[in-house]
Formats: sequence, structure tokens, C-alpha cells
Amino acid sequence: MKRSDGRKPNELRVIKITKDYLKHPAGSCLIECGETKVICTATVENTVPPFLKGTGKGWVTAEYGMLPGSCSSRIKRNDASGRVHEIQRLVGRSLRAVVEMNQIGENTIKIDCDVIQADGGTRTASITGGFVALVLALDKMKKQKIIQRIPIKDYVAAVSVGIVENTLLLDLKYDEDSNAQMDMNVVMLGKEQFVEVQGTAEKGSFSKKQMDGLLDLAQKGVEQLMTIQKGILKGIKF
Amino acid sequence: MKRSDGRKPNELRVIKITKDYLKHPAGSCLIECGETKVICTATVENTVPPFLKGTGKGWVTAEYGMLPGSCSSRIKRNDASGRVHEIQRLVGRSLRAVVEMNQIGENTIKIDCDVIQADGGTRTASITGGFVALVLALDKMKKQKIIQRIPIKDYVAAVSVGIVENTLLLDLKYDEDSNAQMDMNVVMLGKEQFVEVQGTAEKGSFSKKQMDGLLDLAQKGVEQLMTIQKGILKGIKF
Amino acid sequence: MKRSDGRKPNELRVIKITKDYLKHPAGSCLIECGETKVICTATVENTVPPFLKGTGKGWVTAEYGMLPGSCSSRIKRNDASGRVHEIQRLVGRSLRAVVEMNQIGENTIKIDCDVIQADGGTRTASITGGFVALVLALDKMKKQKIIQRIPIKDYVAAVSVGIVENTLLLDLKYDEDSNAQMDMNVVMLGKEQFVEVQGTAEKGSFSKKQMDGLLDLAQKGVEQLMTIQKGILKGIKF
Amino acid sequence: MKRSDGRKPNELRVIKITKDYLKHPAGSCLIECGETKVICTATVENTVPPFLKGTGKGWVTAEYGMLPGSCSSRIKRNDASGRVHEIQRLVGRSLRAVVEMNQIGENTIKIDCDVIQADGGTRTASITGGFVALVLALDKMKKQKIIQRIPIKDYVAAVSVGIVENTLLLDLKYDEDSNAQMDMNVVMLGKEQFVEVQGTAEKGSFSKKQMDGLLDLAQKGVEQLMTIQKGILKGIKF
Amino acid sequence: MKRSDGRKPNELRVIKITKDYLKHPAGSCLIECGETKVICTATVENTVPPFLKGTGKGWVTAEYGMLPGSCSSRIKRNDASGRVHEIQRLVGRSLRAVVEMNQIGENTIKIDCDVIQADGGTRTASITGGFVALVLALDKMKKQKIIQRIPIKDYVAAVSVGIVENTLLLDLKYDEDSNAQMDMNVVMLGKEQFVEVQGTAEKGSFSKKQMDGLLDLAQKGVEQLMTIQKGILKGIKF
Amino acid sequence: MKRSDGRKPNELRVIKITKDYLKHPAGSCLIECGETKVICTATVENTVPPFLKGTGKGWVTAEYGMLPGSCSSRIKRNDASGRVHEIQRLVGRSLRAVVEMNQIGENTIKIDCDVIQADGGTRTASITGGFVALVLALDKMKKQKIIQRIPIKDYVAAVSVGIVENTLLLDLKYDEDSNAQMDMNVVMLGKEQFVEVQGTAEKGSFSKKQMDGLLDLAQKGVEQLMTIQKGILKGIKF
Repeated sequence: MKRSDGRKPNELRVIKITKDYLKHPAGSCLIECGETKVICTATVENTVPPFLKGTGKGWVTAEYGMLPGSCSSRIKRNDASGRVHEIQRLVGRSLRAVVEMNQIGENTIKIDCDVIQADGGTRTASITGGFVALVLALDKMKKQKIIQRIPIKDYVAAVSVGIVENTLLLDLKYDEDSNAQMDMNVVMLGKEQFVEVQGTAEKGSFSKKQMDGLLDLAQKGVEQLMTIQKGILKGIKF
Repeated sequence: MKRSDGRKPNELRVIKITKDYLKHPAGSCLIECGETKVICTATVENTVPPFLKGTGKGWVTAEYGMLPGSCSSRIKRNDASGRVHEIQRLVGRSLRAVVEMNQIGENTIKIDCDVIQADGGTRTASITGGFVALVLALDKMKKQKIIQRIPIKDYVAAVSVGIVENTLLLDLKYDEDSNAQMDMNVVMLGKEQFVEVQGTAEKGSFSKKQMDGLLDLAQKGVEQLMTIQKGILKGIKF
Repeated sequence: MKRSDGRKPNELRVIKITKDYLKHPAGSCLIECGETKVICTATVENTVPPFLKGTGKGWVTAEYGMLPGSCSSRIKRNDASGRVHEIQRLVGRSLRAVVEMNQIGENTIKIDCDVIQADGGTRTASITGGFVALVLALDKMKKQKIIQRIPIKDYVAAVSVGIVENTLLLDLKYDEDSNAQMDMNVVMLGKEQFVEVQGTAEKGSFSKKQMDGLLDLAQKGVEQLMTIQKGILKGIKF
Repeated sequence: MKRSDGRKPNELRVIKITKDYLKHPAGSCLIECGETKVICTATVENTVPPFLKGTGKGWVTAEYGMLPGSCSSRIKRNDASGRVHEIQRLVGRSLRAVVEMNQIGENTIKIDCDVIQADGGTRTASITGGFVALVLALDKMKKQKIIQRIPIKDYVAAVSVGIVENTLLLDLKYDEDSNAQMDMNVVMLGKEQFVEVQGTAEKGSFSKKQMDGLLDLAQKGVEQLMTIQKGILKGIKF
Repeated sequence: MKRSDGRKPNELRVIKITKDYLKHPAGSCLIECGETKVICTATVENTVPPFLKGTGKGWVTAEYGMLPGSCSSRIKRNDASGRVHEIQRLVGRSLRAVVEMNQIGENTIKIDCDVIQADGGTRTASITGGFVALVLALDKMKKQKIIQRIPIKDYVAAVSVGIVENTLLLDLKYDEDSNAQMDMNVVMLGKEQFVEVQGTAEKGSFSKKQMDGLLDLAQKGVEQLMTIQKGILKGIKF
Repeated sequence: MKRSDGRKPNELRVIKITKDYLKHPAGSCLIECGETKVICTATVENTVPPFLKGTGKGWVTAEYGMLPGSCSSRIKRNDASGRVHEIQRLVGRSLRAVVEMNQIGENTIKIDCDVIQADGGTRTASITGGFVALVLALDKMKKQKIIQRIPIKDYVAAVSVGIVENTLLLDLKYDEDSNAQMDMNVVMLGKEQFVEVQGTAEKGSFSKKQMDGLLDLAQKGVEQLMTIQKGILKGIKF
């Protein structure tokens, strides 16, 4: 099985993260995974959802959108499909996994992930880039003395894996994703720990052995993504 | 760790499926998993989504809802939250995995899963019960000579597993689910094949070893569920 | 004129009320009027509509829905048609007629009527069953010492009557209702008093004399319904 | 009991109908019942609802609205409350009762009733005025040779009655309506025939004898309204 | 170029303003510009938008609607199209230009402009009539001692101008407006000052010289409108 | 009056247009006007609005949005405020002014303008950049032989002007715009012709003489913008 961009089965696309991409938000970056490009921003609002009022704890949540021109056929603006809901819930949960909520006061950090160009893997790019925007925003909060330290427990990054023509592949492009027998999104912390595993057979089914192989691929990919995150966030201590 | 209803960690709740529960739909059942009760119905509509028009293929899709009085605090009627979207997409995908779409004509079979009482595991009960309603509807279509045979490739059933107080548990009740470190919904076909695996750490993270243990538990649970399905559907050949 | 289920013109269908049908709501029942089946629940919320804030008075309101699989053709989920609005307003008004609002504190009791199977008369069944759920919820409030006594002034029950093939009939089934020249929903208290009378000619018109005959039939039907309510609520004093 | 505008209990308010009030619609009038003022228009659209496609029959339907400045406190624009739904369904049913649907071709006549000033009785004024707009539109259709004759079977008009301070009153003003123990909207054809009777106890309940008295009052009121309708429509034969 | 109603190019249609047209609102009028008829009402609410809370300042805002029967083809009720938004923003801005917001307390004056018959120029009629309703409401507030004086800085009125068949025209009727090469809405205060100028080429483009000619026409028209406003508001000092 | 970025009153910000910014749409560019950055895309759909069906003519329309992180305070996603409607109508009209609709077949070209960073002038940047995306899309249609030539009649570009501290300024930044006494958006073709002029006094009013000065400034600005457009589109003949 030959990949359309010539990568090896266990090879990530070229990843590029540009931090401070926009001037207004507390934190922001542009993450590019091959042709997939997502703007991630983090804004801080001095309020929390009702269930946290008066607890002294904060909240982290995410929203996700695609520009109308981001896909090969135009995306209807303001689509709030089930897919969008699913993705923003996934991104929010993944980022909350690494934040000490009782250390950010009664503030909500909202992560917006806006896909300007899509070529597969937009939800995992949103998690990996969203983490960078989140840390940058926390760093700004620290500089503004809203918080004393950056209350991040671990790195978090995500990647997709899947099976195409019976071959296990890392980091699927759109053409691969749409032909996959199954794909799986894997969100991990450092030290081989999982936060979220979502595997779906699109055609047929998959065995435990295949799943084991894919988790292994994913772990290698996430390690490389964290190396890139660390380079970008170098100088911010947590 | 002692379970509140006295079950062993690897023990399912009492499962009861009442078929032909309602008189109007083509197929229907009430599935009870302990205190969780879901009405599953299957109705057939002589139409398909736009992307299938003219292909000769049919479609299977699902909707999910909770009665206002199904939970300990009242559920707002007609809630179309992200959670609901996520569940109905999961149920639909799981059931589509076993249907030969080119054998049902340009018809849509809609599976409605309405929770009348919730105590954890409503989405997995919806899949397990939805499959029964689906087969009953196909059997009716066969009797009406709309189809020649029942185009089902395999059984499909689902169960939740999770980690509570570091113990791996099968089939979480609500009190367990809301205290779980992580939980995982597992959808399987016969012969140890997976259709969907969704594991989420609610607090912290989980290791590969824990995941292996949970998948093992899930497989045992699904086998028992399929035995029950087979008993209910006895006499329908596919 | 022969009725499809063999009843006499002045005969009710078999009525069955199962109390405490669901475990979570303060009050609940399943009411079955022949093949029509409605789950009625009553939940108590510690809030009132804006116009009652600070008055010390409470409120009773109702919502009505039909499960997608409750009818012979699938009902679109979350339908908020004019018909639904009309029914929930009718149910709410009917139940408020018997409650002393200044005796329940600033609480709202919400009655949810969810039709799981429809065969005519769902709105009148909702009133008759909703009353049972309401009293059960008040009994629970009394046991929880939120109220001192059960502030119910009278029983309330409802039935439909109508004219089919020029015959006056009590308690119309769906096949009768859809062929009726006119039908009338009658809500009554004890002692031959009316709360609501809604008569509608579906084809042509009706005379005063016909109306008198129907009101007479309705009164007999409501008396029997109240006997059943009293049996179910035996032991609750008000 | 003295009425605030000095009327006798069985006296209508001054009724004035101005026909052809607007230049664009096929039929239109302004109906004034005392201070209540409603613009009724009838427009013809060359289409029918799906369930009538291909039957050769037409349809009559109604919409109802209140201008924001029509009441003593401002009405939210575009309110689609349960009350509005209830009213437009009532107006539509009442007018359909007198139209031979198979004589108007596959056309829909839409009656819009827009309240510019409200002082009680807007729904009954909408029916009485809506009938005038409807006949004017049919007359125009006849002149345009779309139809051969005016397919109206009878006059239809409506009035409210009610009980205030134990006195039976005809044609309630707003101050009376809001203090009524019960009120009833009565829609009638000629010759003492009823199309719709909707009686509601707002406080307590009502007896059969009271209902009989009110129906008698209503019948007298409707007769006078029809005399006015006949004067306005003089020269149009049906 | 001959105008369909025989007017000279620089001639307004017959303008008629009926004040206190409705009894409930604080201020109201019916403005008729030829066949265009708009009901303008002003209601006062004791609240302000969030950004003004606690500032001691008030607010003026506008809403605009068309009755379903106001046009030659029926207008869908509750249309909230871009056009409607544009118009209500324009009317609101124009009226705010003449009110001293810090003199009306934390109150919102809402101007509703409801078109009952449309024949071109409904938005400019809404401004000219809306001003009358606004001043009448302020006069009522003064009589009720809510304010001490009427805090209006200047008159405001509006008119449309445009180019049809290369002729510059004042106050376009619908038939002219729909054939115009360009049209322009001009909102002015007294003393030749502009508040808003919106010129749009519907076909092709327009030159600076044409624009100058149109602004000159508009100014003459506005002067006449203000003379009419002054006549109507005679006796109210500001 | 000194401008915050040191520009002279009649000086544009640095303008940069990057063409073919995204890979999927038929035409696209990123336009940067100082810190304001807008992605403009043009997509072609083989359909037209109902009023053009069967006419052989095409349509051009626009949508406008702001990313949540584009402003100093977070923008609610999917905002469809009056302001948004106003802008997308303006952009659509401006671009339609230069297209020969009968030369593009029954196709709709949709221009999406998505602001990724806002600093004043986003609507005029959308027009100027939208024109570039439109021409690029037409060029692609020509290469695909859908059209024979590029049916563009003229260039179109837009700029804002306004009065701040009594000084007439070209191309307002956000800090200037929010302090302006009045501002005006001017859309022009080549040869000193106007398509749209929208002047609004935000505080007080403005005179004819001021308006003349501003239109003069705008014309100079638009000429420079067109020089940039011509450079970008060099090689495309129309």
C-alpha cells in the first residue's frame, strides 16, 4: 500500500505550529499538519457555568468550526451538526484532563478551533494546537497575576490512526480517512497514558490485534507531537 | 470495592427484552438492563437521504431521547444537546455495521430509542435493543415481500465497562458511572470483532493494560447479551 | 352503528392506571385507556414563573409529547405543533382548577404526559392520569414536610365524546375519532361541574340537542373514571 | 353587575366592518368591535398542502398576530406562543366549515388576522371579519374566472360569552374577560347550528344550566353579527 | 419621464400623519405617504440594554415589520430577513441622533413601525412617523413626571430620492423604486445637516454630480416633512 | 490630530493581498489592510435562487463572518446579527455591480469573507478582496470551459472614510472608527463612478461640505486599491 504523499505507514505529516498567530486572544496558534490548517485561540472569561458558581473552580471548554471554504465542497456556515458537537466535546474533555481547575479561579478558558483548510485529522490537530493556545493563555494570566503558576499537570496531544487496505497507518490524510476500514482517534498524556480512545469501524469490524498495533503507532506519533509542543512552549515553566 | 447492587465486577445486570412492545411500529421492544429501561422502535420510510437517491441502496439511522421524568432531575423536553447527537450517531453507525444496505431497497429504517427510565448504560442498551427492533422490522418487511431475505450480516450488541476505585467493572450503573475514573463503551459483533470502542478518562488517565482488561470484560458481557438477543429472535432466519 | 371493538355507545374502554410507574419523579403513573397508553409524571421544581415571584404562591403546568413510534406513521421527534401547544395548555388549566396554589409554596409542579402508544383520547387520558401523578407528588411533598396537607379541592377527570354516523358515542377510539362528524372533550370536577368543554364540528355542524346528549354521556364516563382514580389514590387524604 | 361601558348584559359592542381596507390582498376588511380592531386579509396562493396535492381540492387556513403596540403592555414581535397557535387553528377550522373545498381548485386561501388594537374578543372578531375577507376574495376569484360560483355553504360568525360576578354576559371586553369566572367562545352557522364551542372555567367551575344560558346569549349575538356581515356582502351571491 | 401618479420630479406624495392612532402605547401615529401606510408606536420600558446598566442613561431602539397583506404578494409572517434588520437599525440610529440619552433615565423607548400597506418608502416613512410617536411618548413621560423636559435636540425626518430613466426624482413610489438605476435614502436634521445618507446603484453606477442633485432634492423634501411634523406636534415644547 | 499609527490623514494602511490562499475553493485570497485580515473565497454552485430558475442567468452572493478570536473581546460563534446581515448584503450588491449575470450560466458564485483579525474596515476589505476571489474563480471557470470569457465589466473596490476630531481621515483603524463623529463606506468602480455610499453620523450630524471632502479622499484611496488589485490579477484578461 503506497500513501498518496509518499509517507511511510508510521510517519507523521510535516507539523508546524506558529504561536501568537492572532493579536487579540490571550493565547493563539496556527497548527498545520500537512495541508490541514487550524487556528486555535484561547480567551478567558470571568465567569463559569452554573454548576461551578461559588466553588472557586474554573472551567475549560472548546468550540470547533470550519470556514465555508475549508473543504472541497463548500461547508454551510454555522453548521451545528452532530459531528461538530462531538468534536467540541472531545476537545474540551481532552484539555480539561490536564488542567488543575481549582487553580484558575472562577474563570472559563474557551478554546476556539477554526479550521481554515481541511485535509483529515482536524479534531486531533485541534487538541494538539488547542493545548498550545491554552498554555499561552495561562502564561498570560500568570503575567497578569491572575494566577500564581501555570496549573498544567501534563502535556496532551492527539493523532489519528487507521486501517487502509489492511495496512495500519499513522496520521491519516483525507483521502486515506475516507477509504479507511476503521479509524481511531487517540488522545494521550506523557508516559504512555491514554485520555481518550475512539475507534470506529467504517466498513466491517476490527480485531483486538489490529487495535493493539494501532495504539502502538499512535503512541509513537504523540511522542513526536509533544516534542514539537515542547519546542514551541520552551521557556514557559509548568 | 463493593457494588451498590451486590454484583460481582464481571457481572451484567438482569437483562430483559420484551419484543413487539408497541403495536404501531414495524419492529419494537422494551429493553431493561436493571433499572434502565429503553423503548426501541424501528419504522420504515420509503425514502433515503439525498446522497443515496438513485443508488438502489437503503439507509439505517437512529434517534435518541429521554423522557422528562426519566432521570433524578427533570430532563428538559426536546433537548438536542451534544450528548444526544453523539449517542444517536453512535447507535446509527453500530446498526449500519451489520446491514447489507443494497438489499433493502431505497428505504430508510429509523430506529428510535426512547429512555423511559435511566440508570446508566442507556446508549449501550439502545444499541442492543435497537438491533432487536431492527431485525423485527426486517422480518415484517420480508413478510410483506418488500425484501426477499433478512439482510443482516451478524449480531451486534454493546456494553459499558469502566474503572471505579481502581477496580475494572462490567455494565456500570449510574452511581458507578458518575464515580468512574474512566469508562468505555464497546460495541461488538460476534467472533470477537469490534465495531466501536470509545474510552474516556473522566479523571486522570488510563494505561494500555487497564484497557486490555476492560476489553476482555466487555467481550464476555457482549457474548451474554447476544445469547439473550438470539433467544428473543429465535425463529427469524438470517 | 357498530363500534370496532364491540363496545356499547355509552361504554368506556378498559381503563388501567399503574401508579409509581417510574422511580425518579415525585409522582408518576401509566394510564391505559384501551390501546392508548400515556406515562404521566409530576416533578417539583423550587421556582415559579416570573409573574408569581414573591407572591408565596406556586404553579402547576403541563407538557405533552408523543414518542416517535406511538402512532401508525412515525411522529417527528420534538414536534411543537399547534396541536401540542393546545393540549398542554388544556392539561395545565384542567389540573390548576383543583389545586390551592397558595398552599404549595413557591414551587412549580410540572406534569409531563408522554404518549407511548396512541389510539384516540390521549389528551383526556393525560388529564385523568396527570391528576393521579399530581396527587402522588403532593403526597410525597407532604411526607417530606414541604407542605402540611394535600391542597386538592376536588377530583378532575376528562373524557371525549362525539358523533359518528349520527350516533352519540362515549370515549372515541382513533378510528372513531377520525370519522367523527364532531367531537368534544369534556373536563369535569365531581358534582356535575364542568371545567372545560371543547366541541368541534369536523364535518358540518351540530345542534344544541346533540350537545346536550353528549354532555350527558360525558358525565357518566367521568364518574366512572373518578371511581378508578379514587381506588388508586385510596389512603391519601385530601 | 354594571358593565364598564354601560352595556346591558345581552348587548354587543358597536360593530363596524370596513371592507376592501387594503389595496393589495384579494379580500380585506377592518373589523372593529368596540375598541378591538383587527385587519383581516385573504390572499390566494396557487398551491395546497402536501396531503391535498393531486386531489383537485383547495384549502383555507389562517394566521393570527398582534401588533407590538396593540396591548397595554408591549407584545413581543413574532410571538408564536401556544395561545397564537390555538387561535389560528380555531379561525382556520371555523372558516373551513363553510367552504366547499372541491370548488376552489388546488388553491390555498390564507386568512391573516392582525390585531392592531386589542380590547377582548380578538379571536371571535377574527372569525367574523375573516369570513368577510374570505368571501371578498372568492368574489374576486369568480370575477377572474378562476371559479364559476362562490362556494360558500353558510355564514359563519363568532362571539364570546362569559360569567362575571355571577352574571351571564355577551361579548366580553378585556376588563370583563380578565375577571370572568369562565368564558366561552362560540362559533355558529346560520339556523342555530354550532361549529365550535370552547368553554373554560378560569376560576372554579360551571354548571350545565349556566352553559345553557350562555349558549342562548351567544346565539342572539351571532344573529346580529350575521346581519352586519350580510349588509357588507350585499350584492355578492352565494 | 412621466411619473405614474402625475407628480413633478421634485414633488412629495400627499403626506398625512394621524397622531394618537392607538390607545395603548405611550405615543403613536399613522403616517400615510401616498398609498404607503405605517403605524408607528412608542412604548417605554423600565430597563436598558446591558451596556447601559448603571450609567443613568436611556436608550431608543426600533423594530420594523410588514403585515402579511401589505404587499402585492403575501409577506411571510415574522420574516427576519437581512432587509428587516437593516431597516430597524437605520430607524433606531436616526432617532437616537436627536435624543439626549442622559435625560430619560434608565428607560428604553421602543419604536415599532408596522407597515400595513406598502408602496415604496416604508423605511423613510418609519423614521418620519417614528419621530412623531417618540415625541408624543416623551410628552407623556413629562406629564407623568418621569422626565422634566422633552430632551429632543432637533427634528429628524427622511425621504428617498433616486434616478429613473436618467431623471432625478423625489419620494419614489414602488413602481419607480423597482425601476430605479439608483436610489438613496436621506435622513436629515434641521439646518441642512445630514444624519445618514445611503445611496445604492441598482443598475450600473452614479456620478458625484448626480449625487449632488439628489441630495438637493432630498433636502427640499425633508423641509416639507418637517413642516408637517411641526404642525402635528404643535403645542409640545422642546 | 495625530493618527495612532503615524499615517497622514489621506494615507491608506499597508495593503497586502495573497492570492490562492486556500487550496479547495475556486478562487481565494487573504487581504490584509494593516492589522485587519480577511480570508475571501469564491465557490461555484450549479444552482440559482428560485427567481432566476430557467432564465439562463447566474447570481453572485456573499456571506460574512468573524472568527471568535478576531476581536479584542470574543465574538459569539455563528452570530447572525443585524450588522452581519447588513454587511453581507452590501458585499453581495457591490460585487454584482460588475458581473454580467447572463454570461455565467445558471450558477451561483458565493463569496465568503471570514475575518480572522479585525482592526476596522472589515467590510470594505471584504469587498476589495472579494473582487479578487471572484475574478480568480471566473478565471478557473474559463479554464474549465464553463464560460468563454471573464464577464467582468469593471473593477470594484471599497474604503472607509470618516471624521475624527473634526479631521477628515482615509481608511479608519478600529480606534479611529470607534471615536469617529461620522464614518462613510464608499464603494466605487473605475472612472470616478460610485456603486454605494453609506454615511452615518455616530455623534451629531455632518454637512454637505464635509461629505464632499470625504468622497474626494475615498476616491483617491480606491484608485490605489485598484492598482493593487490590478497587480494581483495581472495576466487575467477581462
